[in-house]
Amino acid sequence: MREAWRLLTIQSHVATGYVGNRSATFPAQLLGWDVDAVNTVQFSNHTGYGRWGGQRFDERHLTEVFEGLERNELLTQNRVVTGYTPSPEALSAVERLITKLRAKNPALVYLLDPVMGDMDRGMYVNPHVLPIYRRMLHLSTIICPNQFEAQLLAGEEITSLESLQAVQEKLHKEYHVPHVIITSLALPPEDLARLGASDTMPDGREAMVLVGSTWDQGLHSWFLQFPCLGEYFSGVGDLFAALVLARFSTELDDLPEPARAAHALEPTKSDNECTLPIARAVMLAVASLQHVLERTRATMIEQGARLHLDPFRPVSQLDAEERVKVMRLRELRIVQSATEIVHPHVLYRPQWVLHA
Amino acid sequence: MREAWRLLTIQSHVATGYVGNRSATFPAQLLGWDVDAVNTVQFSNHTGYGRWGGQRFDERHLTEVFEGLERNELLTQNRVVTGYTPSPEALSAVERLITKLRAKNPALVYLLDPVMGDMDRGMYVNPHVLPIYRRMLHLSTIICPNQFEAQLLAGEEITSLESLQAVQEKLHKEYHVPHVIITSLALPPEDLARLGASDTMPDGREAMVLVGSTWDQGLHSWFLQFPCLGEYFSGVGDLFAALVLARFSTELDDLPEPARAAHALEPTKSDNECTLPIARAVMLAVASLQHVLERTRATMIEQGARLHLDPFRPVSQLDAEERVKVMRLRELRIVQSATEIVHPHVLYRPQWVLHA
Repeated sequence: MREAWRLLTIQSHVATGYVGNRSATFPAQLLGWDVDAVNTVQFSNHTGYGRWGGQRFDERHLTEVFEGLERNELLTQNRVVTGYTPSPEALSAVERLITKLRAKNPALVYLLDPVMGDMDRGMYVNPHVLPIYRRMLHLSTIICPNQFEAQLLAGEEITSLESLQAVQEKLHKEYHVPHVIITSLALPPEDLARLGASDTMPDGREAMVLVGSTWDQGLHSWFLQFPCLGEYFSGVGDLFAALVLARFSTELDDLPEPARAAHALEPTKSDNECTLPIARAVMLAVASLQHVLERTRATMIEQGARLHLDPFRPVSQLDAEERVKVMRLRELRIVQSATEIVHPHVLYRPQWVLHA
Repeated sequence: MREAWRLLTIQSHVATGYVGNRSATFPAQLLGWDVDAVNTVQFSNHTGYGRWGGQRFDERHLTEVFEGLERNELLTQNRVVTGYTPSPEALSAVERLITKLRAKNPALVYLLDPVMGDMDRGMYVNPHVLPIYRRMLHLSTIICPNQFEAQLLAGEEITSLESLQAVQEKLHKEYHVPHVIITSLALPPEDLARLGASDTMPDGREAMVLVGSTWDQGLHSWFLQFPCLGEYFSGVGDLFAALVLARFSTELDDLPEPARAAHALEPTKSDNECTLPIARAVMLAVASLQHVLERTRATMIEQGARLHLDPFRPVSQLDAEERVKVMRLRELRIVQSATEIVHPHVLYRPQWVLHA
């Protein structure tokens, strides 16, 4: 039995709402982790609102906090997650810390979410973070880029099943990442079909396809397909990363008691179900996330009707006052979903990729 | 049915450990509150360790965060708690915020913990906070000073049952505080006996006596006596304040669902049990706190034995390295006590004060 289950999260803090550390901390605590949190900013609300008050913390402040932890021998975490860190200076301070943690504890599980941009918006951080992230890949256990970020890291486009596998192999073999999760994949329908997936659920809803891979004397690749619910919300990626990190285990002893229960779930009879530990963690994380998103959408619709606001209108069509109100309606209902975060109902299961 | 249950806490943030906002946030979230948190400092660990890294945030930063919230109409909280705020400038910024919240929402429940010092150490904040706290009393719904702080606020000593009542009356009548909770009371044994209390539990353990009062066309005064467990720990007062605020209700509709269940508890048959809503909230808060403290003590003893450290040794007898290790052992086991925070087992019940 472990003496402690301690998880460090280094992300943004907002006074109100759920992004960064505010999205990661409560769910990981619910799952039994003693969560240590270093805040890289303190803002009134997330920047998607269009206006906010507060400040980013500079490298000096972050380094002081890290040095305080180090000097007092408080760097005893088993797990670390890092996310959105827009400045190269702050990211360098984080890199130095993770290097120390990794040296101290070779069994450290580090989930790196290399937040840099997406297909729609392109790169929205300082481009100098890219070489730092590439170095940090060597420290990571799990990474969860979206397709845009995976392409940036590998320096190669993903346009087919073959180029997807080339990117995965590069991240595993050249950058030594044990587990790669590409959180959203857009491929031509025929390549998705060769994967065994589709961009449509059997009931006709739009689907998200997430692709995971583990390197173990070769590429072991799987995917998870589930209905697309997350497009309107901020903090979804931060919540996903925290849930995966809080759930991942090769042995149950790696997890605090509340995180263990759902792992007792039997696999389905499907011959093709992937039961790799990382795939199980992702399956449970997605299941919890779907609950949170469904509750958030329901509340959005209800409160939007009361306020005579369409909460799904694109930000570009909203004036400043409307934008603030709509962003508020879109805040994740995390606290209200405590039960489903701990005990999710699993509807979608990971499948092995059919063939190369 | 309320649209939202939203609680704002303005306190310290430590990267690791449980004081200030780190002690208040998770328990209030467990009880169903959407917790908004403004951090007044970011330190690696609490200052009881003797050394730490990080910084206090100045009035300008706090004001920027508050203004961001105000401008975006995010000051919709039903409840607020404030605690340790050592600088008069920062406390003034907090005072301005609470004044706005109170004007916006007359039904706001504001719990003010006027942290200034204690009987053993005297005053450990800048003395210029005292007049600000006295002004803020007029904004408060509940205050929870210890005896030292109650005396400072009222400008009168508490040495007998009579002087206790004089202080209570002053806080209620001159400063218009609806509910006063004096969290630890030391009185001569004969005055405790006149209250109906004792400094010893029936089983011989040392007792704490907490005294509460509500002004409603006269002084309604009650007490709660329970075994003394908290003396070694930091963050206990912050946890207590958050639990009281998260549990207090005059109508169940004031509370999110997880905070309601325990209120269904029947009063005991004792004729003398006080069933005022504030006394019920304190009873439940103390019950949860006792669970947390018992678990913390048990872990301290077990881990202390493994590290060959006596975790109960006074700080004055420890060198700098030992002090850090001992303070670490004394961190509250809040995450591990999630079940008992929501469903405490009530052993000690509030009693009406026998006679004036």
